[in-house]
Amino acid sequence: MTESKYAAAGVDIDAGDAVVSRIKAAVSATHGPEVLAGVGAFGGLFDGAALARMGGPVLVASTDGVGTKTKIATALERYDTIGQDIVNHCVDDILVQGARPLFFLDYFATSKLEPAVAAEVIGGAARACAEAGCALLGGETAEMPGVYVEGEMDLVGTVVGVVERERIITGEDMREGHVVIGLPSSGLHTNGFSLARKVFEGWDLTAPAPGLSRPLGEALLEPHRCYAPHMRRLQEDGLWPSGLVHVTGGGLVDNPVRVIPEGVAMRIRRSAWKVPPLFDLIQREGAVSDEEMCRVFNMGLGLLVVLPEEDAPRAMQLLGEGAQVGTMEARGDGPAVVLEA
Amino acid sequence: MTESKYAAAGVDIDAGDAVVSRIKAAVSATHGPEVLAGVGAFGGLFDGAALARMGGPVLVASTDGVGTKTKIATALERYDTIGQDIVNHCVDDILVQGARPLFFLDYFATSKLEPAVAAEVIGGAARACAEAGCALLGGETAEMPGVYVEGEMDLVGTVVGVVERERIITGEDMREGHVVIGLPSSGLHTNGFSLARKVFEGWDLTAPAPGLSRPLGEALLEPHRCYAPHMRRLQEDGLWPSGLVHVTGGGLVDNPVRVIPEGVAMRIRRSAWKVPPLFDLIQREGAVSDEEMCRVFNMGLGLLVVLPEEDAPRAMQLLGEGAQVGTMEARGDGPAVVLEA
Repeated sequence: MTESKYAAAGVDIDAGDAVVSRIKAAVSATHGPEVLAGVGAFGGLFDGAALARMGGPVLVASTDGVGTKTKIATALERYDTIGQDIVNHCVDDILVQGARPLFFLDYFATSKLEPAVAAEVIGGAARACAEAGCALLGGETAEMPGVYVEGEMDLVGTVVGVVERERIITGEDMREGHVVIGLPSSGLHTNGFSLARKVFEGWDLTAPAPGLSRPLGEALLEPHRCYAPHMRRLQEDGLWPSGLVHVTGGGLVDNPVRVIPEGVAMRIRRSAWKVPPLFDLIQREGAVSDEEMCRVFNMGLGLLVVLPEEDAPRAMQLLGEGAQVGTMEARGDGPAVVLEA
Repeated sequence: MTESKYAAAGVDIDAGDAVVSRIKAAVSATHGPEVLAGVGAFGGLFDGAALARMGGPVLVASTDGVGTKTKIATALERYDTIGQDIVNHCVDDILVQGARPLFFLDYFATSKLEPAVAAEVIGGAARACAEAGCALLGGETAEMPGVYVEGEMDLVGTVVGVVERERIITGEDMREGHVVIGLPSSGLHTNGFSLARKVFEGWDLTAPAPGLSRPLGEALLEPHRCYAPHMRRLQEDGLWPSGLVHVTGGGLVDNPVRVIPEGVAMRIRRSAWKVPPLFDLIQREGAVSDEEMCRVFNMGLGLLVVLPEEDAPRAMQLLGEGAQVGTMEARGDGPAVVLEA
């Protein structure tokens, strides 16, 4: 057989096939009876019979990437966590609208496809899908020499979920006096990595950093948390939040703004929870203002749950962690989010 | 106001906002009444009431990227076409399973976010969505310095569609004697660009190339065709293909293999259509074997439509273009696809 010109051009079709065979089992493990297996040659098929039985099914979808967190993964050559990041990020994004995830699709691209690396990344995504109870329905791996910097990669995910129309959480029901519960994040989750990497430029990622009990790189790589189990516990008990905020890009300030209705403001008491040492370290080393920290990072709170004061004690019990970090109050001409020292 | 540390790290939050404001109108134009506008702060919401009225709704989803076609776009600084590529590629991928598209989400990432460029890319995607009758429900733009080569970009899309369970086209119904109609592609569509770019390395993309009536770059950039209107015409007339093949990565050989059932083979007569000059040029200049050309490129056929012989004349009339390029025949020990000179 003559040399493949396509391979000479930097694209290895067999490498793609090798990835597929490595991840097959992990992907299949996410497939419940809704996935019509062995049918979808070009796209994945998901049985919507359960939707047809709903009163007013609304599909909720979100696409996102893990950002430059990939660069921490490539620097450490640790590829099993960023798949969890993208799945959990996407699932949390639709969770805050009241939706439960149905299926997820991934896209993994890099300068040169290493089947072992791709399989670790996608295997991590498959595990997170299984934990979130959503099917890994499809995906794509791409080798793009000349587009990606050598050894670098991007990872993108899309989740599709469903919610009963009358159960959509918009934030419109947040009222003066409602309590804001903050659930702990596990670290930076998937936002602010360009700034964090700038601050830690030249640092040894494998060495423990001041105030951290483990290597800096490990702390930075810690996967995005999935809050689906928390929400399930609330909803099974009949507790429906008046508002939910996924604290992603835009941090503690800009994310609540996306859902706070006219007339109310969210007062967040900075003293109500302990900001994890990783954020303190970034702020100190980077000489970042407090205001910017709160507009870029989650500061230790990955999800904000807003509900009536009378529901707060029961909610705290069901959530099993977190703290009351704020209150909804009347808003005059002021901003929608007030940070109280 | 002090200098933003985040901006100093190479990420401009305002640039992201600028993109959103530029594309708002084009995106809104794709929104029918199913899109619950002004509700989805973290994910897009799509009313599934129509699904609830179906007998057996099956969701069909596909994720893909445009590959290194982006490098032609960046070389020519022509950004309005690759959005059409990704939408049409994704829509065709679910079309071949019998599905109609409901909504689409895009992901655009680059080394440095230029709002005007991003708006052109996503604006192109929005136009293609409008033409395909699907909503551009959400998306993400990402700025990833150090991951993407300077000035380069990636574009990823996810489409979700629906089909009645009993109308899913799997290819299982392809029988000996069925006719294969090939619909013309517009060019390379979105596959084989790494090889094509290798062949044309150093060529002036703005100059006409031998045998082409227009500049090489223009011919290479020509957007992926959407075959949704063709399929609609067939289905409205009650014609359901026994098999459909979207000719993407893997070319004329490996794509049919994905859907051809046991016992039959597809015989493709290479003399039945004229291979467009762009493919001839690539083959000649790159000294690529005929076999590899057919495993990488569509060779001028973007979609293969398989149906019973008696339906072929009516189908040809409804399609309004294309040629009978092959026949399904009994398969012994031979391959599933036979290329006849």
